[in-house]
Amino acid sequence: MSTERPGAPPEQRPDPAGIHGWMTSLSNWGRWGPDDELGTLNLITSQHITAAAGLARAGLPVSCGWPVDPGTPDVYGAPQRLMLLGGAGPAPEPPPGPSPAHRPHHSNVEYIGLAFHGMTVTHLDSPAHASWDGAMYNGRPASAVRFDTGAVACAVTAAGRGISTRGVLLDVAALHGVDWLGPGYRVSPAELEECARRQNVAVRAGDALLLRTGTGHRARQPDGPGLRDDHKPGWGFDCLPWLRTRDVALIGCDSINDAVPSGGGGHGFDLPVHLVGLVAMGLWLLDNCDLEELAATCGELRRWEFMFSVLPLRLAGATGSPVNPIALF
Amino acid sequence: MSTERPGAPPEQRPDPAGIHGWMTSLSNWGRWGPDDELGTLNLITSQHITAAAGLARAGLPVSCGWPVDPGTPDVYGAPQRLMLLGGAGPAPEPPPGPSPAHRPHHSNVEYIGLAFHGMTVTHLDSPAHASWDGAMYNGRPASAVRFDTGAVACAVTAAGRGISTRGVLLDVAALHGVDWLGPGYRVSPAELEECARRQNVAVRAGDALLLRTGTGHRARQPDGPGLRDDHKPGWGFDCLPWLRTRDVALIGCDSINDAVPSGGGGHGFDLPVHLVGLVAMGLWLLDNCDLEELAATCGELRRWEFMFSVLPLRLAGATGSPVNPIALF
Amino acid sequence: MSTERPGAPPEQRPDPAGIHGWMTSLSNWGRWGPDDELGTLNLITSQHITAAAGLARAGLPVSCGWPVDPGTPDVYGAPQRLMLLGGAGPAPEPPPGPSPAHRPHHSNVEYIGLAFHGMTVTHLDSPAHASWDGAMYNGRPASAVRFDTGAVACAVTAAGRGISTRGVLLDVAALHGVDWLGPGYRVSPAELEECARRQNVAVRAGDALLLRTGTGHRARQPDGPGLRDDHKPGWGFDCLPWLRTRDVALIGCDSINDAVPSGGGGHGFDLPVHLVGLVAMGLWLLDNCDLEELAATCGELRRWEFMFSVLPLRLAGATGSPVNPIALF
Amino acid sequence: MSTERPGAPPEQRPDPAGIHGWMTSLSNWGRWGPDDELGTLNLITSQHITAAAGLARAGLPVSCGWPVDPGTPDVYGAPQRLMLLGGAGPAPEPPPGPSPAHRPHHSNVEYIGLAFHGMTVTHLDSPAHASWDGAMYNGRPASAVRFDTGAVACAVTAAGRGISTRGVLLDVAALHGVDWLGPGYRVSPAELEECARRQNVAVRAGDALLLRTGTGHRARQPDGPGLRDDHKPGWGFDCLPWLRTRDVALIGCDSINDAVPSGGGGHGFDLPVHLVGLVAMGLWLLDNCDLEELAATCGELRRWEFMFSVLPLRLAGATGSPVNPIALF
Repeated sequence: MSTERPGAPPEQRPDPAGIHGWMTSLSNWGRWGPDDELGTLNLITSQHITAAAGLARAGLPVSCGWPVDPGTPDVYGAPQRLMLLGGAGPAPEPPPGPSPAHRPHHSNVEYIGLAFHGMTVTHLDSPAHASWDGAMYNGRPASAVRFDTGAVACAVTAAGRGISTRGVLLDVAALHGVDWLGPGYRVSPAELEECARRQNVAVRAGDALLLRTGTGHRARQPDGPGLRDDHKPGWGFDCLPWLRTRDVALIGCDSINDAVPSGGGGHGFDLPVHLVGLVAMGLWLLDNCDLEELAATCGELRRWEFMFSVLPLRLAGATGSPVNPIALF
Repeated sequence: MSTERPGAPPEQRPDPAGIHGWMTSLSNWGRWGPDDELGTLNLITSQHITAAAGLARAGLPVSCGWPVDPGTPDVYGAPQRLMLLGGAGPAPEPPPGPSPAHRPHHSNVEYIGLAFHGMTVTHLDSPAHASWDGAMYNGRPASAVRFDTGAVACAVTAAGRGISTRGVLLDVAALHGVDWLGPGYRVSPAELEECARRQNVAVRAGDALLLRTGTGHRARQPDGPGLRDDHKPGWGFDCLPWLRTRDVALIGCDSINDAVPSGGGGHGFDLPVHLVGLVAMGLWLLDNCDLEELAATCGELRRWEFMFSVLPLRLAGATGSPVNPIALF
Repeated sequence: MSTERPGAPPEQRPDPAGIHGWMTSLSNWGRWGPDDELGTLNLITSQHITAAAGLARAGLPVSCGWPVDPGTPDVYGAPQRLMLLGGAGPAPEPPPGPSPAHRPHHSNVEYIGLAFHGMTVTHLDSPAHASWDGAMYNGRPASAVRFDTGAVACAVTAAGRGISTRGVLLDVAALHGVDWLGPGYRVSPAELEECARRQNVAVRAGDALLLRTGTGHRARQPDGPGLRDDHKPGWGFDCLPWLRTRDVALIGCDSINDAVPSGGGGHGFDLPVHLVGLVAMGLWLLDNCDLEELAATCGELRRWEFMFSVLPLRLAGATGSPVNPIALF
Repeated sequence: MSTERPGAPPEQRPDPAGIHGWMTSLSNWGRWGPDDELGTLNLITSQHITAAAGLARAGLPVSCGWPVDPGTPDVYGAPQRLMLLGGAGPAPEPPPGPSPAHRPHHSNVEYIGLAFHGMTVTHLDSPAHASWDGAMYNGRPASAVRFDTGAVACAVTAAGRGISTRGVLLDVAALHGVDWLGPGYRVSPAELEECARRQNVAVRAGDALLLRTGTGHRARQPDGPGLRDDHKPGWGFDCLPWLRTRDVALIGCDSINDAVPSGGGGHGFDLPVHLVGLVAMGLWLLDNCDLEELAATCGELRRWEFMFSVLPLRLAGATGSPVNPIALF
């Protein structure tokens, strides 16, 4: 098996100048009412949830989240963990007293802090994470995210009931027989189709669709760049109409979803999947998943569908949340 | 309906001097091997997960997590949200440029920080949250939690695959026909039994057992103390043998689980459910749940069992995690 | 004594449209070489320092800094203090052991965090705090402040040797016989002149010039807005040429220096003293001083000059620092 | 010049078992009244301040503070700098508008956080930093420092007017003709005496006395341990009576003041200079100074005395403060 598939995909690609038009043609603004903040999560009906639960027939959970480690630097700084109470200190412990009432007992308490919207923490983006031309999803003004109040519209709290739906993994690295797709590799709709065909799995409305590029495999190479690589494989921008047509409810990837460079930069869309997805479509994004064990499990069970749960913290005013997404087989 | 049931429960209670003996008699040390860090979560088998998923037949999710709000003070300080990128600032937005490439687009990025082990944030405690007489669950030394490394044993990462199992709600406030149980009220095993009988629900091995005291109802009263009340209703310490006998995998409550005062303080066990549960039994705890909507849903559907998911963040070295637990009916 | 002088100052004011021209006419760019980051602090020579030290003849220190208190909300959130080690916890202290070697000894250690550029923390602004039209002081690009690296030019570390110079207080509130100037009050050059004359003090090159508006007095009123008032008295924008002509090295105020509203907002200069001062002049600013005890001391000693020390932390990449400025009489 | 003087000092040392007695014999409890929180800072009179200012005759400032850098790990984690506003982001800047009112202008605002009581940040310890046998300086209970309120006695705010006094540097590394004293080297009173004699400088009541061990020189060696070395040179514990007799007001060092190991560990005094100094004497400590430029300046001017200013932030409830101490020659 070759190690890496280089960044330039073979197909002819559409003109990135067209991305601008997608802000209108792929838009879901108004589709679920003028006050909607849920966007594509509206596509997950109670029937989807019940059906998804039926996929958990083996009772086998797999995490798609990376550990959050204070030792890992990231774009906006490393996560923090500060022990506030307990934590064995430098002072020697006094000897135990004579009775149980004097046995020392401790609570250990920590402060956790993180700027999760980087390249190492598995996290969910709500539509408030991006704005374009002064507006967020469903026409909310960009100014609805303020440095003091945080997001007063389209915040992650809109998904406070969690996301539970059918998950589908498309393992495009495996499709190409490589360990990982190269930095900047843009997966095309044709590859998605081919991958689904080979895996014998259909993508349906309301699904959470996960794309494996092998970035997690690459991140585990000794002396490698880890997850901090400025160039990333990911969804090519021309997947956007494909995702919109299929009414996918949530997308996830082992990179930041957008390929970097995306090809849209010269046209004002550095991160077109983020911008068109979040702003026009109201499509929620799951960045920096760890899909290695998931892919191995799918391969072993010959099953690329599962119950998928993403339960964001109800962070008031936040534009996303760190999460630990779980696939149940 | 009367509003509150006062703190003194009617029954005769066992002598708290006996708590000390429970550190041995209720112990699960060694039960799942000398290296075990999962404790009672070992009781959740794949069969439990599959069966739990079968309870999600209505496709209806209910959150048991409170919002995490920077405006809410707590024992160790209020949660923090700092907007790092974006966030409409005081400067007026420049006018849009002539072409799409120059339309302003923004990413909104925040830093989130919280000391979640207080009274307002819904969170999971791992066994590393407490030690007694120099040891944590399964005999790990108390010194395995250090101010620099955090917990190197029994950390929340042991539950990295998440907790998915059958959930059962025992609504003891409703049993007594009150809005909430009074501060310091200790629920007894007899009340648990009576409640389960009235709700026609059995408690089984591997369950997540949630106790509703009505604290969430009380917290919502205008001019009330919110969730910050030094005196709390909760499980009486004599529920510990009852929970151990039934092999409950996880307990949760709308308070901090322990009643405060617990009655064990004079014997060196200020928080006996925490100390005996975490240290001796390896019982994971879910503190500060919001059980109001859950109770209403259970009452409406006449069903007090559901699929229950708690997906802690994989926080390296942490003794717990903020969570958004979801019940699926 | 009347309490407050209303916001509209009596004099005719120059046209704010002229502020734009001051970006050039008041500029110090290139004056101290192409690489200079010190700006007006260059005006403090060793002679100034020696002469300033001569003013400390009474050996009497007065602080001009407000306490930094976790209980005080501010524009970017309240300051944080998290106790990491020590801090008496809820657990009872074990009894002392039999020998000195077992007497408990504790270190108390805290984490301190603050976003000091608000309205409550006394702080110094370095020129990197602001940019205009893509540039900072001395033509450094605005992009020299990055969210990852912080300021790589004009950072507060340029003043790493501290600021020690002659300080002069102009007590304009006292000049008008009021406790405080009203919100939005813009002090004019004529008032500065008149104030200096009445106080019999000259403003000289290299001075730190402090303006008292009485905001500290107002902040101490019970049931008042504290320091958090969106409208502020301060230097009128027409003081800028006056300050430039006199080669003042540092200005400070008990407000944020700029009057708010400043009168320049419609012309793109919401905070003209900040923008013209920091960007064009390289003038360092001291915001949110507490000048009440200083004014009382000056009044008592009939002396409005003193040795003045501002010793910013050497915060790498920061655009300012919280400080505790000290006047020595 | 040899590089390092090994850790074992030649002299015979007193028995560390005597340290315990110093908690009483060196005590300043009650000396300045029952409510005193200033401790040895009481020794700095207005005469001392005036005399100290007279030492600033060359107008030359030298900083004794290390930069605070987010890239430097420390005992309790690295300092944090989070850019909240401004900070050139990934989005391209829109082109300038047609009029000055539309020129983009930015404020750059950061959050700074640090647990300064480690080995890299120059900081001042107030007496609340330590307790022994249940008490802090002047008999205040150890419980006066709480995890929620911080220090309610002996906090750093007691020194809110700053510390301005005569500073004296004793360059013991230079005395021995080495670049640095070895890890664990304990400077003795005899060496202090000899050093003062050679430098022709007297130590007087009310002085800030700085000890140079060369740790700053060592920290700058490429591939060296930086400031993070578990073994440190510093004041031997037998300097404590010497410091008490001379009524030194403040001590500082380029290490953490205590030699590590101190020799007192087996007797319950791991850090005797901290414990006896802070708790019994009320002696304020300045840890982790950078004394390299100071020593060079002293050597050049043949003058080891100067005006010395330490202006701690008025951090409510804190047991110390990061500082940038400045020597004025």
